[in-house]
Amino acid sequence: MKRFLDLADFERDEVLALLELSRRLEKYPEPHALAGKILGLVFFNPSLRTLASFQAGMARLGGSSFVITPGQGTWQLETRPAVVMDGAAAEHVREGIPVLASYCDALGIRAFAEGKDLPNDLAETAFHAMASLVDKPLINLESAVNHPCQALADWKTMDDLGVPRSGRFVLSWVYHPRALPLAVPAAAAHMAALRGMEVVVLRPDGFALPPEIMERARRAAASSGGSVRETSEREEALAGAHIVYAKEWGATTCYGDVEGDARLRSALTSWCVRSDWFARAAADCRLMHCLPVRRNTAVADEVLDSPRSAVQREAYNRLSVQMAVLYQLLKGL
Amino acid sequence: MKRFLDLADFERDEVLALLELSRRLEKYPEPHALAGKILGLVFFNPSLRTLASFQAGMARLGGSSFVITPGQGTWQLETRPAVVMDGAAAEHVREGIPVLASYCDALGIRAFAEGKDLPNDLAETAFHAMASLVDKPLINLESAVNHPCQALADWKTMDDLGVPRSGRFVLSWVYHPRALPLAVPAAAAHMAALRGMEVVVLRPDGFALPPEIMERARRAAASSGGSVRETSEREEALAGAHIVYAKEWGATTCYGDVEGDARLRSALTSWCVRSDWFARAAADCRLMHCLPVRRNTAVADEVLDSPRSAVQREAYNRLSVQMAVLYQLLKGL
Amino acid sequence: MKRFLDLADFERDEVLALLELSRRLEKYPEPHALAGKILGLVFFNPSLRTLASFQAGMARLGGSSFVITPGQGTWQLETRPAVVMDGAAAEHVREGIPVLASYCDALGIRAFAEGKDLPNDLAETAFHAMASLVDKPLINLESAVNHPCQALADWKTMDDLGVPRSGRFVLSWVYHPRALPLAVPAAAAHMAALRGMEVVVLRPDGFALPPEIMERARRAAASSGGSVRETSEREEALAGAHIVYAKEWGATTCYGDVEGDARLRSALTSWCVRSDWFARAAADCRLMHCLPVRRNTAVADEVLDSPRSAVQREAYNRLSVQMAVLYQLLKGL
Repeated sequence: MKRFLDLADFERDEVLALLELSRRLEKYPEPHALAGKILGLVFFNPSLRTLASFQAGMARLGGSSFVITPGQGTWQLETRPAVVMDGAAAEHVREGIPVLASYCDALGIRAFAEGKDLPNDLAETAFHAMASLVDKPLINLESAVNHPCQALADWKTMDDLGVPRSGRFVLSWVYHPRALPLAVPAAAAHMAALRGMEVVVLRPDGFALPPEIMERARRAAASSGGSVRETSEREEALAGAHIVYAKEWGATTCYGDVEGDARLRSALTSWCVRSDWFARAAADCRLMHCLPVRRNTAVADEVLDSPRSAVQREAYNRLSVQMAVLYQLLKGL
Repeated sequence: MKRFLDLADFERDEVLALLELSRRLEKYPEPHALAGKILGLVFFNPSLRTLASFQAGMARLGGSSFVITPGQGTWQLETRPAVVMDGAAAEHVREGIPVLASYCDALGIRAFAEGKDLPNDLAETAFHAMASLVDKPLINLESAVNHPCQALADWKTMDDLGVPRSGRFVLSWVYHPRALPLAVPAAAAHMAALRGMEVVVLRPDGFALPPEIMERARRAAASSGGSVRETSEREEALAGAHIVYAKEWGATTCYGDVEGDARLRSALTSWCVRSDWFARAAADCRLMHCLPVRRNTAVADEVLDSPRSAVQREAYNRLSVQMAVLYQLLKGL
Repeated sequence: MKRFLDLADFERDEVLALLELSRRLEKYPEPHALAGKILGLVFFNPSLRTLASFQAGMARLGGSSFVITPGQGTWQLETRPAVVMDGAAAEHVREGIPVLASYCDALGIRAFAEGKDLPNDLAETAFHAMASLVDKPLINLESAVNHPCQALADWKTMDDLGVPRSGRFVLSWVYHPRALPLAVPAAAAHMAALRGMEVVVLRPDGFALPPEIMERARRAAASSGGSVRETSEREEALAGAHIVYAKEWGATTCYGDVEGDARLRSALTSWCVRSDWFARAAADCRLMHCLPVRRNTAVADEVLDSPRSAVQREAYNRLSVQMAVLYQLLKGL
């Protein structure tokens, strides 16, 4: 394994092996496995779980890490090709990224969607430009439309909780004051489909996931016996759900249009997950959310503080699945 | 020892044992004692000594650490219960804190007083709310009205310098351009009282320590043979002093009233410790201050640069006493 | 070796020994050489390479590090002596620096030129004031007019590339939207002269390096058989060049005068290194730059993306030469 950029780069069996390794490292720690190894972490966007869990994961395996946050103690990095750099950015990723890669044994990069041009974000232009400059093991810490570490942690969480492989996975849009990226919904839909689940994407009009993202999830479903469909009918979608996976994202009918998006979402504050969302769900239906979550805006206290909530386990599982990724990348299995 | 949140949680003998352990670790390093252990550090407020000394202390004992600074590379964290999160904070401590705790073996949290509502700050509402979410060893890196790491370092400093157990400890208010929290004066008064000293709180009118803080120090004094009183008479207070412990804090008669506080303190710029403050003190009277200190505003160069100053030793002792705390929490003595 | 503040503090043979050690550590890693040792890094100015390469270098040698960034998660530090601290800075370096030094085994400090008063910057007033407070091994991570770690990495880079010892080293001013410090040009001119090269400082009128810096380089040249001269004739300077070392710096005829500097440089946007700069250079002439570099402003894509560019190797060599410096300082050779 040379890179961990997209769960879709791996066969289903390879993902299952990563999850198995994750469980093994959780049960039987290997405190010297990565002794002397160094992980570089580059955050173009803020982070709490990713920052803490990757540093902790390297330390648990005996390695160490350094963190670079462009624009914060480090100058801004330019990502556009062939630009005349007379603005705020002091350095180009064409220099910055390979230099940082040369100081470490594996590099992780977080670079959110620009949120302006949908085809550009779907093409992962910025992330791919950086990835092409790195000849070391590379980890996607969340890119424009992907978040494979979160997806892997979510899969493990459902295994831990005994969620049926073919259970109903309702990925539901929830309210947020402003547009957020498509990375997590895209990764979650694909992951649940690859797991073999009945994926229902529940979202209001104007927020349909782009066809490219739906198609990608459908290909995964086809390979695993799952299915993928979308709807705006909440009651129907939630009936029989094993998982309600709440997530905020931006309008796709007017992607990048801040005012148009705001107009659409202003009428949708009722899309906050409350107890009554689970009225017709499976008895042990769980709430999932990648965090950070805005309480009583996206999900109500009554749900987050109930036994239904699996959000802390999802976050905790980031640690063990990322340890498995680091192990595979750096231990050379 | 499960938590280090407040010196008042410990018997005097337990504090003495911590100081003894601190001296032992200073003399006989144990570079592998905490191998494989991870300390998480969460700073809601800025830090220099605490940040550096905890990271160095973990490293000296063979462990490692990660640092999270909400609002800086990490989103802001909401602390109010049951709030509708439609403002700036993207995540609630109810998720953020237990998640961070799940990545490490011990967690340290710094969260200063809000400085608006005195009963609320005295109750340590925000810190206790976070502490209740953590099931790992927890360290108070300075809360609204407490700073036990500083208090322990100050105690060790007086032991190092041979300050008599029953000596006179003058905790003196000094000038600062704006109101600062009560954490250090509260912790210092209690610590000196528990050590058995004659504690004199010297402060101008309007800056009396709240009765709850004075009462707490008096209870400690009662258990150790010390005493606690307060005065606004500087000359009398300083006569025979073994320690002048300078500290800035906000007006308590108009707590949270920025303009009222400013009016009061504007007349008090003469409360800057100068050489003549020591005219009638004990011959070897020392100046203490927890740092950061504003030179020539709170304490004059002539004092800070004289042999009277113990401020650097206090700061240095943060390292060894915190190593003792970490050792007790993580080595399970 | 007690300090690494200035390449001029060392004999040529001592520099050669550091380079030899650097090559040895690159070839034969010593992953436990600095086990248990702690490096403190203080950045008054932003950093990418220095931050990452020092943290990585300590980790490669088995040690660890902590980072303090005054003004960012840590309060601002005052550097002026005898000042009444009633402004923004909460702490003085007279306290902050020795305290941080007391927590670690070696300290690195980055403090750029103020860029207002040339004699003051040439005297390294601020850096020397801090250095005088440190009794631990100390490393200059870039000061007002020096950058010895960069100079050492540049020397190694030329050795790696087989650049003739007596080759022509053209240090050329290049365009930048605003004035940058003299640290790198000063260090590079001195380094190349000490290596024994024919140093040509190529710069437009108004940007001559200060006599003190030229004189220092000339003394180094005298000791090593090199030479140092300056010119504003680009074609003549570049003819036969083995190295074009591009660097941006501020006008010296109106140092600290932002408007005057802007007026001078506005006419100089053609000072961007392009392929035709190498027309009469040596066949294997290389481009060097310390990074960060503004593409198509200071150096064109066509040069940075060509085999002539040695900028990534320079940056990579920061790691190995700094490991040699750390090894010498902390392993006590």
